[in-house]
Amino acid sequence: MELNIILNNIKNLENLDEEITFLSNKILNAKRVFIFGVGRSGYIGRCFHIRLLHLNIDSYFLTDAPAFKRGDLLIVISGSGETESVVNVAKKAKEIGEVIGVVCKCGNLKDIKLIKLPVEKNSFLPMGTAFEELALIFFDLVIAKLMRKLNLREEDIIKNHNNLL
Amino acid sequence: MELNIILNNIKNLENLDEEITFLSNKILNAKRVFIFGVGRSGYIGRCFHIRLLHLNIDSYFLTDAPAFKRGDLLIVISGSGETESVVNVAKKAKEIGEVIGVVCKCGNLKDIKLIKLPVEKNSFLPMGTAFEELALIFFDLVIAKLMRKLNLREEDIIKNHNNLL
Repeated sequence: MELNIILNNIKNLENLDEEITFLSNKILNAKRVFIFGVGRSGYIGRCFHIRLLHLNIDSYFLTDAPAFKRGDLLIVISGSGETESVVNVAKKAKEIGEVIGVVCKCGNLKDIKLIKLPVEKNSFLPMGTAFEELALIFFDLVIAKLMRKLNLREEDIIKNHNNLL
Repeated sequence: MELNIILNNIKNLENLDEEITFLSNKILNAKRVFIFGVGRSGYIGRCFHIRLLHLNIDSYFLTDAPAFKRGDLLIVISGSGETESVVNVAKKAKEIGEVIGVVCKCGNLKDIKLIKLPVEKNSFLPMGTAFEELALIFFDLVIAKLMRKLNLREEDIIKNHNNLL
């Protein structure tokens, strides 16, 4: 039953084709991609960042990044849209380049372009759990879309997988 | 169609009730919980670690942890079971305390207790993608099980959510 709640939540991603195409185009058109989120959302963001590197896309996680400049794209991730550090970063970045938020609720990120993940809140999945699960899979679908757009197959990108650890 | 492949993979978790119960009992019986994985598996592990902290369970991610001692439990995460650093860590830890691996394939982790996540590989989800998605959700189901065993509700654990960032 609990697994069904998770599956039903993830099924909601089937209506997000437009958002997946939109974000993949923004990534391809950006000079560089920066990603930011804190806590579990941050770690989901880092998972996405690693895969972008496998695709040879110039990507940084914001806490380990050079200066954000004109032409760069920042993707911020916050289920509530209220995480103060994320809101502050988004505000600063908006003065410089393009910012897209991946959220569940608008929160205080109303004045930037948002992609809303349709999460049905259930307390068996505490706090942002359902959002984080959807975000991981949403970003994986963006990766799949980027691979098609770049005409890359798994055997192409596997060459960029970490070979030291 | 791609989303269906993901959903079908996740559905396979419905046969893992025993493993979810097993791991949650091991966590409750351990003195402390240590988690290790590299790359995306590592970040999935960090997501699990954060949630364990919310449940007031003494948890560490191995790269930011004190010494592993008798009575402690180490959970290693590697889809292939072949990540060298993970295999090395698991071998060292086995001499000291208890080790459980969460994997897709045994790889070189055959001599420790393993929980295998049933992933149907598909190249549209490159490398460990399907494993990482299942691992995140598997660990979230372990959290749900732990909440029931500890009689904790969302409002109890939300008090332990980060309040500074």
